[in-house]
Amino acid sequence: MNYKMVLYLLGQMLRVEGLLMILPLLCTWVYHEDTLTAFLIPVVVLVALGSVLTYRMPQKREIYAKEGFAVVGLSWVLLSVFGALPFMLSGAIPYFCDALFETASGFTTTGASILTNVEALPHSILFWRSFTHWIGGMGVLVFTLAVLPRSNERSVRLMHVMRAEVPGPVVGKLVSRVKSTARILYGIYIALTLLETLFLLFSGMPLFDALCHAFGTAGTGGFSIWNDSIAHYHSAYVDGVVSVFMLLFSLNFNLYYLLFLRQVRPVVKNSELRWFLSIVAIATAAIMLDTRHLYSGVLRSFRYAFFQVMTVISTSGFATTDFNRWPVLSRTILVLLMFVGACAGSTGGGLKVGRIMLLVKTFVREVRLMLHPRSVHVIRTDGKRVDEETVRGAASFLIAYLFMFSASVLMLAVLDNFDLVTNFTAVSACINNIGPGLEMVGPTGNYSLFCDASKILLTLDMLAGRLELFPILMLFSPSTWKN
Amino acid sequence: MNYKMVLYLLGQMLRVEGLLMILPLLCTWVYHEDTLTAFLIPVVVLVALGSVLTYRMPQKREIYAKEGFAVVGLSWVLLSVFGALPFMLSGAIPYFCDALFETASGFTTTGASILTNVEALPHSILFWRSFTHWIGGMGVLVFTLAVLPRSNERSVRLMHVMRAEVPGPVVGKLVSRVKSTARILYGIYIALTLLETLFLLFSGMPLFDALCHAFGTAGTGGFSIWNDSIAHYHSAYVDGVVSVFMLLFSLNFNLYYLLFLRQVRPVVKNSELRWFLSIVAIATAAIMLDTRHLYSGVLRSFRYAFFQVMTVISTSGFATTDFNRWPVLSRTILVLLMFVGACAGSTGGGLKVGRIMLLVKTFVREVRLMLHPRSVHVIRTDGKRVDEETVRGAASFLIAYLFMFSASVLMLAVLDNFDLVTNFTAVSACINNIGPGLEMVGPTGNYSLFCDASKILLTLDMLAGRLELFPILMLFSPSTWKN
Repeated sequence: MNYKMVLYLLGQMLRVEGLLMILPLLCTWVYHEDTLTAFLIPVVVLVALGSVLTYRMPQKREIYAKEGFAVVGLSWVLLSVFGALPFMLSGAIPYFCDALFETASGFTTTGASILTNVEALPHSILFWRSFTHWIGGMGVLVFTLAVLPRSNERSVRLMHVMRAEVPGPVVGKLVSRVKSTARILYGIYIALTLLETLFLLFSGMPLFDALCHAFGTAGTGGFSIWNDSIAHYHSAYVDGVVSVFMLLFSLNFNLYYLLFLRQVRPVVKNSELRWFLSIVAIATAAIMLDTRHLYSGVLRSFRYAFFQVMTVISTSGFATTDFNRWPVLSRTILVLLMFVGACAGSTGGGLKVGRIMLLVKTFVREVRLMLHPRSVHVIRTDGKRVDEETVRGAASFLIAYLFMFSASVLMLAVLDNFDLVTNFTAVSACINNIGPGLEMVGPTGNYSLFCDASKILLTLDMLAGRLELFPILMLFSPSTWKN
Repeated sequence: MNYKMVLYLLGQMLRVEGLLMILPLLCTWVYHEDTLTAFLIPVVVLVALGSVLTYRMPQKREIYAKEGFAVVGLSWVLLSVFGALPFMLSGAIPYFCDALFETASGFTTTGASILTNVEALPHSILFWRSFTHWIGGMGVLVFTLAVLPRSNERSVRLMHVMRAEVPGPVVGKLVSRVKSTARILYGIYIALTLLETLFLLFSGMPLFDALCHAFGTAGTGGFSIWNDSIAHYHSAYVDGVVSVFMLLFSLNFNLYYLLFLRQVRPVVKNSELRWFLSIVAIATAAIMLDTRHLYSGVLRSFRYAFFQVMTVISTSGFATTDFNRWPVLSRTILVLLMFVGACAGSTGGGLKVGRIMLLVKTFVREVRLMLHPRSVHVIRTDGKRVDEETVRGAASFLIAYLFMFSASVLMLAVLDNFDLVTNFTAVSACINNIGPGLEMVGPTGNYSLFCDASKILLTLDMLAGRLELFPILMLFSPSTWKN
C-alpha cells in the first residue's frame, strides 16, 4: 500500500470539498444568516488540511487497484465526516451520527433524512444539503469512469489501466486521461442542471428553490427544501419537469457524450436505454391501472404514476404522494423497481438496468447450455461480445449485494425493534440510494427513530451502494492495508 | 426430442405411483372407511395408463439432457395431478386447484396447506397426504443423484453421462448405474424413517401418528395430522425427536453412504456439514437470547428455538409455537434461514448450504482478484478444486432463483390483494419448500384464501423450487419441444 500517495490524493479531495463549501458560505451572506462560522471553520480546516497533505507530491507515484479502491472508499467517508461539520456547527443537526447520516445521504445521492422539519433550517444549510447531492452526482460520474467502469469500450480500457498491476499506472497519466472525458461529462451535467433550473423558474418558482431541486434531481438524490417535497408546489408542470429530468439523469451519460459527437444511431440502438424505457413505460401503465380509482382522470393518474416510477427507478426519492397508501400491486412494483435502479453510468443507484440485462442473458445462456451442452454461447450487448470477466463480475456483484443486504437487515433487527417491512425497505432504500422506503421510513416518515448504531450501519449501506460495494467492503479487509 | 422415450419413462413413473397408492388403499380397509373407490379408481387408472405407455420399449432409446429435464419436469406435474385424485374423489378437497396445490405441496415436501381443518379428514386420506412427503423425499434423492448432481465426484461423473449429447447415454445403462446407488440411499432413508417411528412410538404415540409424522420428517415436508401440528402432543420428548430427525434428514445423504462404507474422516471434515451445524447453532443461540422473556427456563427456550430453527432450515414446516408473535430479530433470522435451506443432497429445499458456501467463496475470490488482478485464484471445497462450470452454475442458479422469486411476488400482487409480507413469505415458503410463511400464511394460517390462479402459481413455485428451477422453467421454453 502506497500510503503517501493515498494521503496525497485524499488531501486533494478534501481541498476540493473546502472550496466547494464557499458557495453555501456565500449563501449565508446573501440571506444574512448567522451560519457564517458554521461554514467558515470547515472551509479553513479543509483547505488547510488539504494543502498540508498535497504540499509535496510523493516520489513514488505508482498506484495499483488496491490504492484506487482505498482512495475511493476513504475519500467518500472523509467527505461525509467533514461535510457534516456545517450541520453540527450551525446547530441544525447537533449530533454527530445524525449529521453524518444526513451528509452521507447527501453525497451518496440517497436522500434519506433524519430531519423531521426541514423547513425550519436556514437557507445556507438547505443549500449545502441539496448541494451535496450535486457534488455526489458529479463525483460518481468520474468515479464510474475511472475506477469501476462498465462494459463500454472506453471505460474497459481505463479499467485495465487502473487494474494493471505491472508496471502500474502513473497517477499523472491516469488523471490527465480521465480529466479530458470528465470535463465533457461535467459540461453536460452542468448544462442539464441549468436547463432544469430554467424550466423550474418558468413555473414561477424562486431561484433558490429551483436551484436546490435541480441539484437534487441532477444527483438523483431527493432532498427537498419542503417537508412535503415536490408536492408542496401543487403543480402538474413542476411534477412533469422534475419527472422528465429524473429520467434524463437516469440515463448513461456516455449516451449524451455520443450525442455531443453527433452519433445518433448507437444512442437509438442502445439496448440498455430500450430496456430502461420499456420498464418505465410498463411500470407506469400498470400503476395507472392499479390506482385508477384513487385519481380522477387519466392525466392526473399518469402524473402521479409516472412521477413515482421515475423517483424510484432513478433512485431519487422525491415525493408527490404517499404511495404507502397505494394498493399492494403498485407497492410491489415500486419495491422491485428499487432494486432495478437506473442505467449504468448515470447518477442513479440500484443494481442498474445494464447489469440486470447481463444477468438475464447469463441465465438464458445457462438454460441453453443445459439443453445443448456441447454448443458455444457468447453473450452479446449491442452486437458486441461481452467478455467473461464482465459476466462473472455482474454475478459476483449480485452475490456481494445479497450478502450485504441480508447482513444489514439482520443487524437492523438486532439493533432496533421495528417491523420487518420497515427494516427491509430501509436497507433497500439506503443500499440502492433511494431515500424513502415503506412503513416507518415511508414518504411521510424519516430515519430519526433508528438508534445511532443503526444510523452508522445505514450510512455504510448508502456508501457501499453508491460505490458499487467493493471499495467500502475492502476497507474492512486486512489485506487491503498490508504493504 | 425423443417423445416415445419420454412417454415410456413417464409411464413407468405413473405405474409406480399407482402401486404406491395401494398402501393408503389398505389403510381404508384397516379403518373401515368409505374412501375405497377414492383410491381404487386412481390405482386402476394409473396402473393401466402406466402399463399402456410402457407396453413396448421404444427402439430409439437414446435420451439427452433435454429429454432428461422434460421427463423430470413433466413427471412431477403428472404425479401431482394424478395424486390429487384421491382428495377429489373422497370429497376431502373437492376442487381441482385446491387438491393439486395440496398434492404438489406433498410431493415437493413443502407442507403448505389449503386445508383449514385437517382433523376432519379420514385416516386413509391423512395417510396418503403424509405419504406423498415420503415419496417426494425418495424421488428427490434419486433425482438429485441422477439429473442435477452436486459438486461431489460421483455425481459430477453421472451428470456428464446425462449431459453428454454424443453418443448419448442409453437409458438401460444409466438406470442400472443410478439404481445401485439409489438402492443404498433408499435403504438409509427407510432405516432412518423406521428409527424415527420407533422413537415416536416410545412416547406413547399411536402407530398411525408416528408413521405419518415420520413420513413428514423424512421428506422434510411438514404435513401433520393435527391442526396444531407437533404442538398437539405437548411433549418435550416428541419435539426433541422430531427436531433431531429434521436435522438428520437435512444432511447430505452421501455422508450416510460414506459412514455406511466406514469412512468417518471425510464426514467429520465435510465443510458443508460444518457450515450447516454452525448456522444451526448460532441461529438457535440468537433466538434463545431474543425470546428469553417468552419462555421460563433455558431448556424450554432451547426446545422451542431449536425446533423452530430446524423446521425452517430443514424446510419442513412443522409447528410447535406461533413464531409470528416472536420479536423481529427472531423472525428476521427465520426468514433468512428460509432462503439458506438444508444441505445439498438431502430431502430439504432452499438455496442449500453448499451452494451458499460456494457463492461466499466466489465473492471472496472476486475481492482478491480486484486487489491482485494478476494472481490466480481457485475455489476449493474440502481440499478439492471446484471447477469453473460448477461455480458458474451456482451463480446462474441464484439469478434464475431471484427472477422467479420477483416474478412470483409481482404476480401474487396482481392476482390477490394481500399484504406485502404475506405475498413475500408465501413465495419464499413455496419456492423454498417450507410450508408456512408469516402473517396470513403464518403457522396458524393457511393458503386457502388465495385465488385459483395464485394457487397454480404457488404450485409451480413449489415444483420449481423442489426440482432446482430448471426442469420446470424449461417446460415453458419452446426450444425444449423442438425435434
